[in-house]
Amino acid sequence: MTADAQGDERVVVLAHEKFPERAKTATGVLKYADYDVVAVLDRDHAGTTTTEHRADLPAVPIVESMADAPAADTLLIGISPIGGDFDDSWRPDVRTAIERGCDVVAGLHSFLTADPEFAALAAEHNVDLRDVREPPADLTVASGASADVDAEVVLTVGTDCSVGKMTVALELLEAARERGVDAGFVPTGQTGIMIAGWGNPIDRVIADFTAGAVEEMLVAVGDEYDVLFVEGQGSIVHPAYSAVTCGILHGAMPDAMVLCHTAGREAIHGYESFDLPPIEEYVTLYEQLAAPVHGSEVVAGALNTSAVESDKSARAAVEEYTDALAAPATDPVRFDADAVLDPILDDEY
Amino acid sequence: MTADAQGDERVVVLAHEKFPERAKTATGVLKYADYDVVAVLDRDHAGTTTTEHRADLPAVPIVESMADAPAADTLLIGISPIGGDFDDSWRPDVRTAIERGCDVVAGLHSFLTADPEFAALAAEHNVDLRDVREPPADLTVASGASADVDAEVVLTVGTDCSVGKMTVALELLEAARERGVDAGFVPTGQTGIMIAGWGNPIDRVIADFTAGAVEEMLVAVGDEYDVLFVEGQGSIVHPAYSAVTCGILHGAMPDAMVLCHTAGREAIHGYESFDLPPIEEYVTLYEQLAAPVHGSEVVAGALNTSAVESDKSARAAVEEYTDALAAPATDPVRFDADAVLDPILDDEY
Repeated sequence: MTADAQGDERVVVLAHEKFPERAKTATGVLKYADYDVVAVLDRDHAGTTTTEHRADLPAVPIVESMADAPAADTLLIGISPIGGDFDDSWRPDVRTAIERGCDVVAGLHSFLTADPEFAALAAEHNVDLRDVREPPADLTVASGASADVDAEVVLTVGTDCSVGKMTVALELLEAARERGVDAGFVPTGQTGIMIAGWGNPIDRVIADFTAGAVEEMLVAVGDEYDVLFVEGQGSIVHPAYSAVTCGILHGAMPDAMVLCHTAGREAIHGYESFDLPPIEEYVTLYEQLAAPVHGSEVVAGALNTSAVESDKSARAAVEEYTDALAAPATDPVRFDADAVLDPILDDEY
Repeated sequence: MTADAQGDERVVVLAHEKFPERAKTATGVLKYADYDVVAVLDRDHAGTTTTEHRADLPAVPIVESMADAPAADTLLIGISPIGGDFDDSWRPDVRTAIERGCDVVAGLHSFLTADPEFAALAAEHNVDLRDVREPPADLTVASGASADVDAEVVLTVGTDCSVGKMTVALELLEAARERGVDAGFVPTGQTGIMIAGWGNPIDRVIADFTAGAVEEMLVAVGDEYDVLFVEGQGSIVHPAYSAVTCGILHGAMPDAMVLCHTAGREAIHGYESFDLPPIEEYVTLYEQLAAPVHGSEVVAGALNTSAVESDKSARAAVEEYTDALAAPATDPVRFDADAVLDPILDDEY
């Protein structure tokens, strides 16, 4: 597990030319992390404020470069280009950050620590370079120990990538805590890890250790909470990423699942020749695949209606989704999380 | 993909203290690889011949150490201790092999190339150290290209680990070739790679690349053959390894599947608290999980009856398995492969 920015830390988030729509990590961190974001770097929007672009985010100034940012402890790379490599146009900002004594956190495929200039500069200024996508060296195969975890384990599963599995887990976490439930979050991807401040990047571990890397996290925190919301990844029918999805399903051994979907999506994103199967089929598949390892039910659904303009149309989409699922559903971001949270907590409280 | 021993190469296979029962790689290589095994190293059985231990293997002398072995091109490590590390008691044999000008091939977790003594000695004697479990650096995510492969793709899937998925694929390959079919083999694990002389070690790739590493092999050889037998791994309901199984299923996009099972097995091997679901449920699960990516049917079954003493009892077990599957089945090692091969070839020829 990778330690990360937390608590009182003052953080600058880099999101050049991509804020907010193509800066999923930046917006996720702004919305859900509990540290203090003091500036966003986006040279295309310098001089504006985050809320001018997205009303649901905390108000943070957007500046041109690290040189214009207020005092901070950490620079966090909040975007990832296709391929996940470091973009050299960010180099001056990272250099300035290190020279100002900031740690730098990134979830890129190419590691900051492998960059000779940054490694030397970080050593000179005694700051940490933290690559959250680098798995710990001591992971191994699952032993089946997730079966013994005390907490009720809730896994967000999806019909596809990018349908809101992390967001739904975090919205449920917040709503459960508001009800006084002792709830925790288990991240499985780079943004989740940056938000939570710990976690194994499941998509980057050795294939044989997929379930084991999830189990290791469940065992580490499973007895500290009454309910654990585990961030799912991908989809069990994704042509490229289903291995990660399946490993998380069997490694987490959830007691309940929440099926996440995006309104109107009909084909796998980026793999348009692969149609999404009907919602009912997902429910059957996830439940039947879970059962031999640990019985689990899809107890609720979360529908991402961010692309649906009116609340009325969004409500109609939710209604249709509820019917297909034969379980309660809502859009927990647009409305509130109660419809999804109730069946989860009913089981146990 | 990793090049490996092939053809006219003269190979010595190391299997100290484990031949034959606990030397799966050694016996697999002896039985199926088409290179020339000139000796087996097993200090516990020195002076005997392989056939004294297992009648179905080619007759090869077993000797005490590499110093007693005849001239050879390659030393192949044919055993893997728990944990997959190099056992220091093998060091003198590897040293002697390198000094005699032999390449050394291993499928261990710890790499020969990372051993300073062997690396220096190999450079000095100009021989290759080949770690087949080290994935190539250029793997990436699947694109869905396996859908376009011309060959009929047949995947061996399993109810558990170690039920004979590699063996069945190789038996089917041989039987198909005997019938004049232009058939190929796609390995996915270290023994399969050692036998075939090429292949990606799927269990060792980055989780996100699981399907992609399979697809890369299918695309490389898919148009060279009429039928491709793909070696499956693990089981779709294995608490630790299902991610690899699922990635292979969606990465290979098989047209047909052969369900492999071991007679009498009732719980996951090494995870005895997890019962195997009924055979019918495996058929449903594999087919339903495959369908949204690429439609596939379990067209036949292969039952490992190696632990069943009499042929009569083995035939009864096969009959029972055939009924549960509702598809043709046999033990292709004990009997012949026809019952499994017929429904595969019927589809296409």
